[in-house]
Amino acid sequence: MTQHPQNAGESRLQRGQRALAEIDGEAGAKVIAALADIAPDFATYIIEFPFGDIYNRPGLDLRAREIATIAALTALGNAAPQLKVHIEAGLHVGLTREEITEVIMQMAVYAGFPAALNGLFAAKEVYSHLTDGNTAG
Amino acid sequence: MTQHPQNAGESRLQRGQRALAEIDGEAGAKVIAALADIAPDFATYIIEFPFGDIYNRPGLDLRAREIATIAALTALGNAAPQLKVHIEAGLHVGLTREEITEVIMQMAVYAGFPAALNGLFAAKEVYSHLTDGNTAG
Amino acid sequence: MTQHPQNAGESRLQRGQRALAEIDGEAGAKVIAALADIAPDFATYIIEFPFGDIYNRPGLDLRAREIATIAALTALGNAAPQLKVHIEAGLHVGLTREEITEVIMQMAVYAGFPAALNGLFAAKEVYSHLTDGNTAG
Amino acid sequence: MTQHPQNAGESRLQRGQRALAEIDGEAGAKVIAALADIAPDFATYIIEFPFGDIYNRPGLDLRAREIATIAALTALGNAAPQLKVHIEAGLHVGLTREEITEVIMQMAVYAGFPAALNGLFAAKEVYSHLTDGNTAG
Amino acid sequence: MTQHPQNAGESRLQRGQRALAEIDGEAGAKVIAALADIAPDFATYIIEFPFGDIYNRPGLDLRAREIATIAALTALGNAAPQLKVHIEAGLHVGLTREEITEVIMQMAVYAGFPAALNGLFAAKEVYSHLTDGNTAG
Amino acid sequence: MTQHPQNAGESRLQRGQRALAEIDGEAGAKVIAALADIAPDFATYIIEFPFGDIYNRPGLDLRAREIATIAALTALGNAAPQLKVHIEAGLHVGLTREEITEVIMQMAVYAGFPAALNGLFAAKEVYSHLTDGNTAG
Repeated sequence: MTQHPQNAGESRLQRGQRALAEIDGEAGAKVIAALADIAPDFATYIIEFPFGDIYNRPGLDLRAREIATIAALTALGNAAPQLKVHIEAGLHVGLTREEITEVIMQMAVYAGFPAALNGLFAAKEVYSHLTDGNTAG
Repeated sequence: MTQHPQNAGESRLQRGQRALAEIDGEAGAKVIAALADIAPDFATYIIEFPFGDIYNRPGLDLRAREIATIAALTALGNAAPQLKVHIEAGLHVGLTREEITEVIMQMAVYAGFPAALNGLFAAKEVYSHLTDGNTAG
Repeated sequence: MTQHPQNAGESRLQRGQRALAEIDGEAGAKVIAALADIAPDFATYIIEFPFGDIYNRPGLDLRAREIATIAALTALGNAAPQLKVHIEAGLHVGLTREEITEVIMQMAVYAGFPAALNGLFAAKEVYSHLTDGNTAG
Repeated sequence: MTQHPQNAGESRLQRGQRALAEIDGEAGAKVIAALADIAPDFATYIIEFPFGDIYNRPGLDLRAREIATIAALTALGNAAPQLKVHIEAGLHVGLTREEITEVIMQMAVYAGFPAALNGLFAAKEVYSHLTDGNTAG
Repeated sequence: MTQHPQNAGESRLQRGQRALAEIDGEAGAKVIAALADIAPDFATYIIEFPFGDIYNRPGLDLRAREIATIAALTALGNAAPQLKVHIEAGLHVGLTREEITEVIMQMAVYAGFPAALNGLFAAKEVYSHLTDGNTAG
Repeated sequence: MTQHPQNAGESRLQRGQRALAEIDGEAGAKVIAALADIAPDFATYIIEFPFGDIYNRPGLDLRAREIATIAALTALGNAAPQLKVHIEAGLHVGLTREEITEVIMQMAVYAGFPAALNGLFAAKEVYSHLTDGNTAG
């Protein structure tokens, strides 16, 4: 897994769009589209700040970044749709199903068994919608 | 960073004590000692379940496990003492300061800027108490 | 938007019923009705304390009170039904759709992008159920 | 309500299975079964730690333990499926519907009215699925 | 442990003051006093709603109510001062130290080990400030 | 209270610095300075995204934005330093002490009495450090 190379003349928006496509794939595009009629500027912010600024930073690879995100969203326990997007994103950037499952299970220690359970059921749902191709762990 | 080898006849408690010492070092020992007069059984549970069961599992290395824990504790934002222990643990298992800082900064996206800010100030406090030896990032 | 005038001889319950009807309209009445067979006293408490005591206080107008409530419920992220009731209440007391959307977007800063996203989708759902009359922002 | 007697030669897993069956009944068995294809080890941990270790401890009877659990899950507000399991578990270990409703209502004080409201609606759903036999409060 | 008898002509405020004094003792009085110069009406609301309305309700005794409150405040993990007040209140209404410790330890299951740990250290602090008289568990 | 006029050629960073100075004053500058040796890029992000992007948006005035922020930080209950900064910011943008106190008190309804209490004590601390000049409510 390599970090995104940063192109000199690229804007934050362009950089973010490239990262969003690579990391979240179709799921990310759907979120952006769903914002079009309610808060299009917010779609721009999501592309620019999390994806253009944060995920493009050197110093931590995308696998590690998705581990951090899956851990946090499982622990917070109030953002199931985003957790599912990032479980799929984790597979996109090279995490195995086993690794993702381990991250979620570990959250029982820090956020309790219900948070981990709900995270595991979110993962189960994501896995069941995917074909068993190169993302299988 | 290698996973803990599991010794055949070892109990959960022994396995956990070995993991706790390797991961948390002195900070972990202090937590266990502080429980002696209020809830000694809880000290045993901490050694057995998180450290004997979870951190010893194959399928995710200790670096990845500490990334997940630092992310979750930063995002939850209500467990500063434990976050500091795990920032130090992250350094013990081979994360650099830069990697830890990146994980914490990323939490601004998922739990808000105040959670990330308080995580960064926790890291600053941990770093300032450490000598700049082999744990420096 | 004016504050509720307080009538001298009115009880907390009467004052609360008046405020609930003005602020939450039909959505509030439904919540109260749904409590009848499980916890009727709790319905009384909701009318008396939040609506009879708090929303009737001088010192902050109802527009500002709904901004505060929409912000808090978006940030907490675990009370979607109540957030929807208060997005509608915000429109009732004179907030525009744009103002409500701005409040929710701002929560990305304090509670993370997922909380804001889920808040925006709640708003989208509320708006789509309303006719585009005088509540349109 | 008596505490589980501990049998000398019993393993944590056996002890936990006995407690899980007594406390959660069919609902607990369903959760365990649902984990079989995603994280079977996590099913084992749930049986061993919460049920084998914690719920079997002397010093607090099962009625008090379920009061604590229902209170916490209502207050946290992000674990509706587990709250429903424990409302049913509360009835299994001898709490009345009235007692459970009181615990949930009280959470308005500590976690806000929306958390209590959502807890009450979870209880309403559980009660409506049960026959009105010996569990009626 | 008996429930508060309700006196016919008593106001919510009077009923609440009696309950507050019995349950929280000196710690409750200090909280009320600290509000005098910033929000005296809020002091009135605390006496009236939680203590005058909720804690005076029949259907759940004060021991059970304090178990619920200690569980919730430990699980939420962001209200240490109030948790300490209610650990002391738990002792006032007849819970033993052992029972309180069990409630807090159990929260590791539902809110994670850090929440339980911080709850146990809060209890340790409360116990260390008390003389070992009739409140000892 | 007027919105920030946006200057055509101004960068996000410049716009954010202007907003940060106007809204948070000295307290904001201290936070930025404290990040210099741990995460200077994060200081830039804070200036650019919350202040350069969000607080500069038309559609909601700064008074309303600070009401939303104070409400959210009180409700979340795990970011006391940031709440204090924004209580002071609220005064800077024209909220009275009474209005701020009302917002915080109202959070008892949505996040529980402990969250509101801790918010009120944060306000008390801020007020006591200020001279009673033009910020007095």
